[in-house]
Amino acid sequence: MSTPTTAVRPISDRLDDPEAARESGRTKIEWARAHMPILAALRNEGDLGFSNTRIGMAMHVEAKTAVLAETLAEAGAEVAITGCNPLSTHDDVSAALDAHERITSYAQRDVDDETYYHAIDAVIDSEPTVTVDDGGDLVFRIHEERPELLDSVLGGCEETTTGVTRLRAMAADDALQYPMFAVNDTPMKRLFDNVHGTGESALANIAMTTNLSFAGKNVVVSGYGDVGRGVAKKADGQNASVIVTEVDSRRALEAHMEGYDVMTMAEAAAIGDVFVTTTGNRDVITAKHFERMKDGVLLANAGHFDIEIDLDALADLAVDTREVRPGVREYELPDGPRLNVLASGRLVNLAGPLSLGHPAEVMDQSFAIQAVCVRELVEGGSDGGNGVEGSDESEGRRTYDAGVHDVPDDLDREVAEIKLATEGIEIDALSDEQTEYLGSWDHGT
Amino acid sequence: MSTPTTAVRPISDRLDDPEAARESGRTKIEWARAHMPILAALRNEGDLGFSNTRIGMAMHVEAKTAVLAETLAEAGAEVAITGCNPLSTHDDVSAALDAHERITSYAQRDVDDETYYHAIDAVIDSEPTVTVDDGGDLVFRIHEERPELLDSVLGGCEETTTGVTRLRAMAADDALQYPMFAVNDTPMKRLFDNVHGTGESALANIAMTTNLSFAGKNVVVSGYGDVGRGVAKKADGQNASVIVTEVDSRRALEAHMEGYDVMTMAEAAAIGDVFVTTTGNRDVITAKHFERMKDGVLLANAGHFDIEIDLDALADLAVDTREVRPGVREYELPDGPRLNVLASGRLVNLAGPLSLGHPAEVMDQSFAIQAVCVRELVEGGSDGGNGVEGSDESEGRRTYDAGVHDVPDDLDREVAEIKLATEGIEIDALSDEQTEYLGSWDHGT
Amino acid sequence: MSTPTTAVRPISDRLDDPEAARESGRTKIEWARAHMPILAALRNEGDLGFSNTRIGMAMHVEAKTAVLAETLAEAGAEVAITGCNPLSTHDDVSAALDAHERITSYAQRDVDDETYYHAIDAVIDSEPTVTVDDGGDLVFRIHEERPELLDSVLGGCEETTTGVTRLRAMAADDALQYPMFAVNDTPMKRLFDNVHGTGESALANIAMTTNLSFAGKNVVVSGYGDVGRGVAKKADGQNASVIVTEVDSRRALEAHMEGYDVMTMAEAAAIGDVFVTTTGNRDVITAKHFERMKDGVLLANAGHFDIEIDLDALADLAVDTREVRPGVREYELPDGPRLNVLASGRLVNLAGPLSLGHPAEVMDQSFAIQAVCVRELVEGGSDGGNGVEGSDESEGRRTYDAGVHDVPDDLDREVAEIKLATEGIEIDALSDEQTEYLGSWDHGT
Amino acid sequence: MSTPTTAVRPISDRLDDPEAARESGRTKIEWARAHMPILAALRNEGDLGFSNTRIGMAMHVEAKTAVLAETLAEAGAEVAITGCNPLSTHDDVSAALDAHERITSYAQRDVDDETYYHAIDAVIDSEPTVTVDDGGDLVFRIHEERPELLDSVLGGCEETTTGVTRLRAMAADDALQYPMFAVNDTPMKRLFDNVHGTGESALANIAMTTNLSFAGKNVVVSGYGDVGRGVAKKADGQNASVIVTEVDSRRALEAHMEGYDVMTMAEAAAIGDVFVTTTGNRDVITAKHFERMKDGVLLANAGHFDIEIDLDALADLAVDTREVRPGVREYELPDGPRLNVLASGRLVNLAGPLSLGHPAEVMDQSFAIQAVCVRELVEGGSDGGNGVEGSDESEGRRTYDAGVHDVPDDLDREVAEIKLATEGIEIDALSDEQTEYLGSWDHGT
Repeated sequence: MSTPTTAVRPISDRLDDPEAARESGRTKIEWARAHMPILAALRNEGDLGFSNTRIGMAMHVEAKTAVLAETLAEAGAEVAITGCNPLSTHDDVSAALDAHERITSYAQRDVDDETYYHAIDAVIDSEPTVTVDDGGDLVFRIHEERPELLDSVLGGCEETTTGVTRLRAMAADDALQYPMFAVNDTPMKRLFDNVHGTGESALANIAMTTNLSFAGKNVVVSGYGDVGRGVAKKADGQNASVIVTEVDSRRALEAHMEGYDVMTMAEAAAIGDVFVTTTGNRDVITAKHFERMKDGVLLANAGHFDIEIDLDALADLAVDTREVRPGVREYELPDGPRLNVLASGRLVNLAGPLSLGHPAEVMDQSFAIQAVCVRELVEGGSDGGNGVEGSDESEGRRTYDAGVHDVPDDLDREVAEIKLATEGIEIDALSDEQTEYLGSWDHGT
Repeated sequence: MSTPTTAVRPISDRLDDPEAARESGRTKIEWARAHMPILAALRNEGDLGFSNTRIGMAMHVEAKTAVLAETLAEAGAEVAITGCNPLSTHDDVSAALDAHERITSYAQRDVDDETYYHAIDAVIDSEPTVTVDDGGDLVFRIHEERPELLDSVLGGCEETTTGVTRLRAMAADDALQYPMFAVNDTPMKRLFDNVHGTGESALANIAMTTNLSFAGKNVVVSGYGDVGRGVAKKADGQNASVIVTEVDSRRALEAHMEGYDVMTMAEAAAIGDVFVTTTGNRDVITAKHFERMKDGVLLANAGHFDIEIDLDALADLAVDTREVRPGVREYELPDGPRLNVLASGRLVNLAGPLSLGHPAEVMDQSFAIQAVCVRELVEGGSDGGNGVEGSDESEGRRTYDAGVHDVPDDLDREVAEIKLATEGIEIDALSDEQTEYLGSWDHGT
Repeated sequence: MSTPTTAVRPISDRLDDPEAARESGRTKIEWARAHMPILAALRNEGDLGFSNTRIGMAMHVEAKTAVLAETLAEAGAEVAITGCNPLSTHDDVSAALDAHERITSYAQRDVDDETYYHAIDAVIDSEPTVTVDDGGDLVFRIHEERPELLDSVLGGCEETTTGVTRLRAMAADDALQYPMFAVNDTPMKRLFDNVHGTGESALANIAMTTNLSFAGKNVVVSGYGDVGRGVAKKADGQNASVIVTEVDSRRALEAHMEGYDVMTMAEAAAIGDVFVTTTGNRDVITAKHFERMKDGVLLANAGHFDIEIDLDALADLAVDTREVRPGVREYELPDGPRLNVLASGRLVNLAGPLSLGHPAEVMDQSFAIQAVCVRELVEGGSDGGNGVEGSDESEGRRTYDAGVHDVPDDLDREVAEIKLATEGIEIDALSDEQTEYLGSWDHGT
Repeated sequence: MSTPTTAVRPISDRLDDPEAARESGRTKIEWARAHMPILAALRNEGDLGFSNTRIGMAMHVEAKTAVLAETLAEAGAEVAITGCNPLSTHDDVSAALDAHERITSYAQRDVDDETYYHAIDAVIDSEPTVTVDDGGDLVFRIHEERPELLDSVLGGCEETTTGVTRLRAMAADDALQYPMFAVNDTPMKRLFDNVHGTGESALANIAMTTNLSFAGKNVVVSGYGDVGRGVAKKADGQNASVIVTEVDSRRALEAHMEGYDVMTMAEAAAIGDVFVTTTGNRDVITAKHFERMKDGVLLANAGHFDIEIDLDALADLAVDTREVRPGVREYELPDGPRLNVLASGRLVNLAGPLSLGHPAEVMDQSFAIQAVCVRELVEGGSDGGNGVEGSDESEGRRTYDAGVHDVPDDLDREVAEIKLATEGIEIDALSDEQTEYLGSWDHGT
């Protein structure tokens, strides 16, 4: 790995007691490794072959991400990694990663903006052939600051909605110079991460932060997309009475047919005990709603940004506000009702005081997609525009144009198959007759 | 309406006591009308204007279909209708329809093939400007037998998977001469009809046909598409222990993450109490599975065709077979176990001895899509190839090429909106700021 | 078996074609036998030894009861049986039973009152040593009409709430002359019959009678006892939105904590789509409720008597009434709403046009309790008052005073154990250390 | 309040910064007050009148208990309180309580045994007229050490199973000298605390301690009593596949009929992912089970004592053990599998690193029972044996013998009614006709 030219040194050089940090981080990583069986299978089966691959990563540097980084390194890659958010880095995990012979970690918690970006630059200095992003900071900075390196990049992967959105904007401007997989959009991520991962962890965080239960509570879920479905389903499974608000008539009807009460937020505001926003939109709960709420309600957000609950309006309305528990801010309204906002309206399962992020099994699936997408890029690579030779379909390898690409369905299914295998689950295969039948609708008529 | 030139007369001319039949049919139709609020809303709101429209229909002529036919007629259309399957016609409903001043019904139960097709010809003789099909017999016969009428047809709608598949094959051969809406494929039909309608009615039919309960039973659901999800969900909701078999790894994983046991049919065969196939494929349960089954199991099919359970193989294996209850045939295997096949392996919620077809609310949604699709064709019409004038987008009307078309999303949503309104459910609307936010991802980054 | 002295002959002597009836009845019985594994186990294991036992039965003579009668006969008893309700007898099943060498059946459908009671007298003429009742007609008639036989009766069993109530009244008057087991009250009957049996079959009957679905419907369940819990749970499991009404605050709170909406009937009346009464009390839904209901609602009763829905008041309110489907009577109210009463307000899972009574597995449990209770009486017998010698506890046999007795808990558990065994389910046993621990709370403090 | 004669001073005298502690404790208490509406209603409605009442309490001194203590004090009582377990006291809450003019708190965390008992003595020195216990330490110590005070005690209340068991043993020895209410055994506590409170909080603690999800996991629940039902129900509601082990055949059958898999622990051991013991018995999971388990399983206990998982045997089997996360100890078995024990096998929802005890709403119900039981004692008092005069039923007041008493059903229901009222839920009342009907079974026959 090339030596970084900037002032940012690897984390091990910056900690007072790197050895203790490594040990602590190692313990965290081991736990995650033990509960991420898909990545384990990819390591064990030797499916990945990454010699001559240099991977640059900008992600939340905590235990689960570390398992991905180690998986890539153990497949032969040189990995340089840094954080994608200064507050999400666990220094001990970063130190443990940095101790790996093929991993250099620049991630450190709570650094200033300049250091944050210099750490990204340090990753770029490793001259990655593949980039792995969570939010897009790495891919943008390469394009902006180090265009001379673009030719040597086979492609990259993006983990989040936000990053994919930014990439699509870049692509629309013809600015994106290499292929990027929209890992965020795969069924394996969308179905499991959103429905089960966010659903369960949002409610567990709310329960543990407040010492309250859900049985018999009116839980108002705003938005009935994948996340909203997950929250509603899990709340129902804890014997809450679920109320759904929506702006889409078909989704509203789906929620109604599921047996939930569906109404406007104005109606729900007056009867809800717990509110969870999942819409991805702004101003879902606003002043006119706050004013109707009962004393003691809980307001939480499970959407990406802290814009769904209008906290500015709430602050304006309130006659007093104070932190009543770690992670819970109470706003007292003029007539007495006290509304409790969890995790400052940020993602309640990630930003709460007890939060550990998504469950390990869920990240196992997302990160396994990352790993096979990196393999796809290394095996097939990009097409045109970047001068990589030998990547052609005549050898059975797929190539990708510069731009944003859906993850090929067979890769998504491959990860599903590995997951089933790790669970010891066998399923049926189509017989030749069945395959033929499906392809030939004459049978049916 | 033109006089039919064939020997087939309207049903009223063919019954011994048409008056009694009409009264009986009227009662059935009134029940359906009372439980199909979306069609009622379309009638009441005057949303449909079908003067100068002649509609030919070939559908299952029973009470729910009758409500659709009457809805079209009450909007001004002349309707000629016949059955799409000789065994599904209710003569009394047919007679009641025929009594309507703008409806002529040729449908009669249990007629021979020649009469069946002559009845379709009678409908064609009415020179329909719109065709509504369930299986495609009407649209095919016009193309084959009466091509001179094709120019005057604005378009048509098809209700089923089978019909859509045949239409796509026609379109692939450039044989389809006017636009057809694939009503079968709309979200409003797929999500509700399959999941809730088939799920609930399949299980209710099994319970009532066998006098058995589901609590504690191992219910094996083959296939985890929309129908399989519905059956699994509803069986789980009756305290069965649900086992899912699949050939698709991702669906298998979805079922697993839902909490169901997932395994091969070979494994499931040995422990299942009730088997419900929903795959749409053949040979899902075969000889090697029958041989492993427990005494007394129930075998039912909720997929389109009676090919999922290999009844020929079962008959070969059996040492004896007899009807042990109406709708239940027992096959006794050499070693003693008795397997019970329901409804001859045909759709258990439609072909059972007690079956009344899909629930009325479910057909209300499907048929409301039919109604607004007919309106769409009448308002906009087809484009080119059929000489209809004045259909152009400059007047805000959409036009459609000859071929198979998805139902426009706004029509699907319109039906969802009407359904919500009939339930008294109000939902939120996006504010301008919210709409702008969704369109402008800069906010998020 | 003694020859009956009354004019009533066994069923076989009264039918035109007893052979055909026997064959039809045999098929029905065989189906039930195949799905009543606990009784099968009792037959197979030779657990019952009933030589020298004469059993008189007055029960609903249909297929499941027949399996009990045959089980008793195959264990050596002479059985004389008749119906406990003239309308519930299946003549073919009665004939098939009568063909058994140790069974005489006097049950016939639709006989007049005199014949009904003469058939009971015929059973009494068999001089039973054990009586098995469903409603108490047999035990009462022996006491009233044939007191000279009481000394030879070891005891009896009663299946229903009604019968038990009458017996307790008799016992309170010191009129009951032999021991009676209150089979109705055992956990094995109460928990499974009420919750699962009635819950599932009530809803399946409603669905099949009306051709409607539950998804998204407001289902109002009156009463949250065992039956109400079953109906609520199963309706919830079919994606209904469940509303519970109660008069007991603690049950109301239980329903609320389960996640259901709890309110008064006056409130529920205005929003319910389907109403199911399960209270065992009268006048649960009355005029003031009917007047608030929506057009098209369904009214069904799952409680014992047809008194929960005030049909007289409804008839008074209505401007018109007619049967709109088999088993559905519509009452049209002055302002237009039409209310639909199912099964004339009688038990919807027993009195509907498609009803087959409780599921076979449920009756298997109840009837197995009957069988082991008969065994208990035969092995131990009654104590004092009836002169039976040799029944004393020194030989490990329990004896019973004249009066109403709970079924001994070990018998109830024995049936549970057999059921588990028939399902192939093994459970743990307490170790000696564990048994000691449970008995010695010193460990805990 | 009398001055304590022992060396233990109130908490305020023992803290370095009592003012800061009070403020912190006050915040915690305020949160609990806001979410314990039943106690709020009892305070607001003036239902309690406790002048001249001195209450001694030995309970877990944390926020929810504090709300009970304040409720009693605000009704006029003098309250002296200390802990019932040295590790469960929150010093800040203790200090905040001690600041109340009618409350003296001696509870302090982590004191030695001598100080612990001296604090109880200090409470006894207040010469309580009513005692409120959690585990029985207070009532025992009065009997043993200060028998001269027994005459002035009206009675007491006991919160837990353990305490009730000890009291029953005392009563059996004729040693219990005043009436004690077994609050633990009331329906309001048993149904809600166990099923919903423990069920939800056990799973939330497991999820948050391990960063894992339940979807698709095999969750093995040992014991199907109230707690086991709650854990199973809530795990099912998070899309786990639930396996139940039992030693009681009827409960096993109930679990089976609910749709859960039922098997022996030996079978379950090999397939479980998460194990939760709820039996109240010892040695539920032992060496023979550990040896069959998969790598990475979680072992948690939700029963009262840390005896259900045989940790000694596990330590003997293990080749290595270490804390892998706060609250998670890993035991590595010879062949490699790593078993993870949560919260040292103690109650996982109380003893985990993130645990906050039972949800506030659940304790609100339990403590409201405590409050009305204290009122019952004060209003009616004990009968005989303790010389309290004027307590006789002729004045409509109930009196209680020395011994263990069930909470009168009307008190339990009163709390249910208040809870419903606080939720704004109205229920129906029986009409006179209905009451008469229930009392007169003639109607039914």
